[in-house]
Amino acid sequence: MRRVSVELGVNRYDILMGHGLQEELRSFLQSRKYSRRSLVITDSNLAPLYGHRVLEAVKSAGLEPELCAVPAGESSKSLAEAERIYTQIIGMGMDRKSPIFALGGGVVGDLAGFVAATYMRGVPFIQLPTSLLAQVDSSVGGKVAVNHAMGKNLIGCFYQPDAVFMDLDFMESLPEREICTGLGEIVKYGIIYDSEFFRFLEENSTGALNLEEHVLLSMVARSCEIKAAVVAEDEKESGLRRILNFGHTMAHAIEQETGYVRYNHGEAVAVGMVGAAYISRDMGLATKEMVERVTRLIEALHLPTKADGCTVDKMYAGIFHDKKTVNGKVNWVLMEDIGKVTVRDDVPEAVAKRAMRAVSER
Amino acid sequence: MRRVSVELGVNRYDILMGHGLQEELRSFLQSRKYSRRSLVITDSNLAPLYGHRVLEAVKSAGLEPELCAVPAGESSKSLAEAERIYTQIIGMGMDRKSPIFALGGGVVGDLAGFVAATYMRGVPFIQLPTSLLAQVDSSVGGKVAVNHAMGKNLIGCFYQPDAVFMDLDFMESLPEREICTGLGEIVKYGIIYDSEFFRFLEENSTGALNLEEHVLLSMVARSCEIKAAVVAEDEKESGLRRILNFGHTMAHAIEQETGYVRYNHGEAVAVGMVGAAYISRDMGLATKEMVERVTRLIEALHLPTKADGCTVDKMYAGIFHDKKTVNGKVNWVLMEDIGKVTVRDDVPEAVAKRAMRAVSER
Repeated sequence: MRRVSVELGVNRYDILMGHGLQEELRSFLQSRKYSRRSLVITDSNLAPLYGHRVLEAVKSAGLEPELCAVPAGESSKSLAEAERIYTQIIGMGMDRKSPIFALGGGVVGDLAGFVAATYMRGVPFIQLPTSLLAQVDSSVGGKVAVNHAMGKNLIGCFYQPDAVFMDLDFMESLPEREICTGLGEIVKYGIIYDSEFFRFLEENSTGALNLEEHVLLSMVARSCEIKAAVVAEDEKESGLRRILNFGHTMAHAIEQETGYVRYNHGEAVAVGMVGAAYISRDMGLATKEMVERVTRLIEALHLPTKADGCTVDKMYAGIFHDKKTVNGKVNWVLMEDIGKVTVRDDVPEAVAKRAMRAVSER
Repeated sequence: MRRVSVELGVNRYDILMGHGLQEELRSFLQSRKYSRRSLVITDSNLAPLYGHRVLEAVKSAGLEPELCAVPAGESSKSLAEAERIYTQIIGMGMDRKSPIFALGGGVVGDLAGFVAATYMRGVPFIQLPTSLLAQVDSSVGGKVAVNHAMGKNLIGCFYQPDAVFMDLDFMESLPEREICTGLGEIVKYGIIYDSEFFRFLEENSTGALNLEEHVLLSMVARSCEIKAAVVAEDEKESGLRRILNFGHTMAHAIEQETGYVRYNHGEAVAVGMVGAAYISRDMGLATKEMVERVTRLIEALHLPTKADGCTVDKMYAGIFHDKKTVNGKVNWVLMEDIGKVTVRDDVPEAVAKRAMRAVSER
């Protein structure tokens, strides 16, 4: 079992990683003064796999949980779905000390977190991320949100969980494509923060793909440590936290242009990182060799380096709809070295478009 | 002009009180690095009265505001209305530095604040409260919310404004009933925190009703100071802040039972304070004389001390739906003296019901 602390003052919390963790969950719940009525939010795919096990663990701590399984998929991340959950928990008589558990990937975590952040102005929230991507990305950092018809994650809050339990047993049911999408974000942590971790991934790419025990635990733990360190510096994304956005400016445009269907998030981020690497090179920040290392590792992890079905003009228009765009200025996170990035708002249109062409055309 | 600071660390902000304030608003906006696109949210009654004036003041600082007038009345405090506003501001291209202004009473402030808190995980928020009640209560303290069909304020956040501008000129258009409802909350500050302020109100009840210049400014400033002091101690309502709930446990039940139509908030709070005073006496905390002083001041300010149309059983059931009720325990704020309250969760059903009978039957 590994433990990573996210140091956020009064919002401080622990991330626990390991196999099983029912005992740890029970003793955590017994140490808290929560109300008994509680809700485990999951999705229609995960409910039959893990719903019973988690309900039993929560009950063993003396709580009285109900299960809420939303339809699997991004379309559940909506205000309409949130409103259905509010109706359920008001009907159950849940109060402001009633915990909400998120058992699932990013969609479930973001939706459940948004409900927890806004029901009675905030109730206790516990993350049980089931996918590799959720474990290393969305379950750490306190970003919760639902989508609007006109854009993803446009309605949300910063809201920290009381604890995160990462049960590595959940990984067993993940299809390879889901593993790869998590690896995309893991590579990002190496690029933005830790060249040694990047090298570790280069040397263990096969072990990473096969989720070999020691590689998996190291990857998840180190990724969470890096994210926790960045978030602790800048909870509300006014400065340093922006570096987590490496590869994401183009990724959001790719996801938007392909209707969030063709590429999943980690795949779009993989392409976006290659694009950002090209821009870094053209801006004179990174060398050709650095760009090649990034591209090779992404390929070794079975992730795409090009996005079929995207056009340069639409991708370029798409980046201005990003939430990080302020007063029409795009803040690009660019690479200065493996393990070091910087933020620039002066990337010329031609440079951005050349990189987009390189990652979209065959 | 008077200034009250709300000391909340990084969330610190100022409340400015006086006549006009367009100049103060302009220089405040010029001192901030906001995006130009911005939204002034108001309601259909206030838009023709003050919309133009506020838009001009915001424009004079170089911003490009649009106006959004929601239908006047509580029904606008809904997720559906919030969603319409999200659609408008996404369409306008508002970004995370785009300020939202709330020009109105509690409904507009709560709705606009909820949108500001949740759009892109939080954009700058500036309160321009137009009613006496909003000035002394809802615009200070950072509680924002919308209603759910099953209860008021069930969906919301704690979200602090960047500034509050209380233009006392707005008071000119208030009907007497609206003035009285503000006075209900003002009396509360005397009871919970400041016996001298209570005496000031006893001695100036006519001046208060007529909104005489020096009485008005003193009342608003002192109320904001007290609320700011309490909120600074306990931003997220885990302890001291509960005392602001004096009179509100019964008030919420009264509002609910009478469908939020018969009594406005300040009137229900007035009745609830009399009820809480009776409970305080029956619990051996307050004397008969204290209860009489509370009742007399409330009557002198043309506020009700009884709620027609309420039944004891429904009122009693109603208090368990309050957001402050945790694990089935009702936390009553009770009076120990004029200027001093305490929180008790051991009020017997018979004592609560006797007080409810006293404030509901004629």
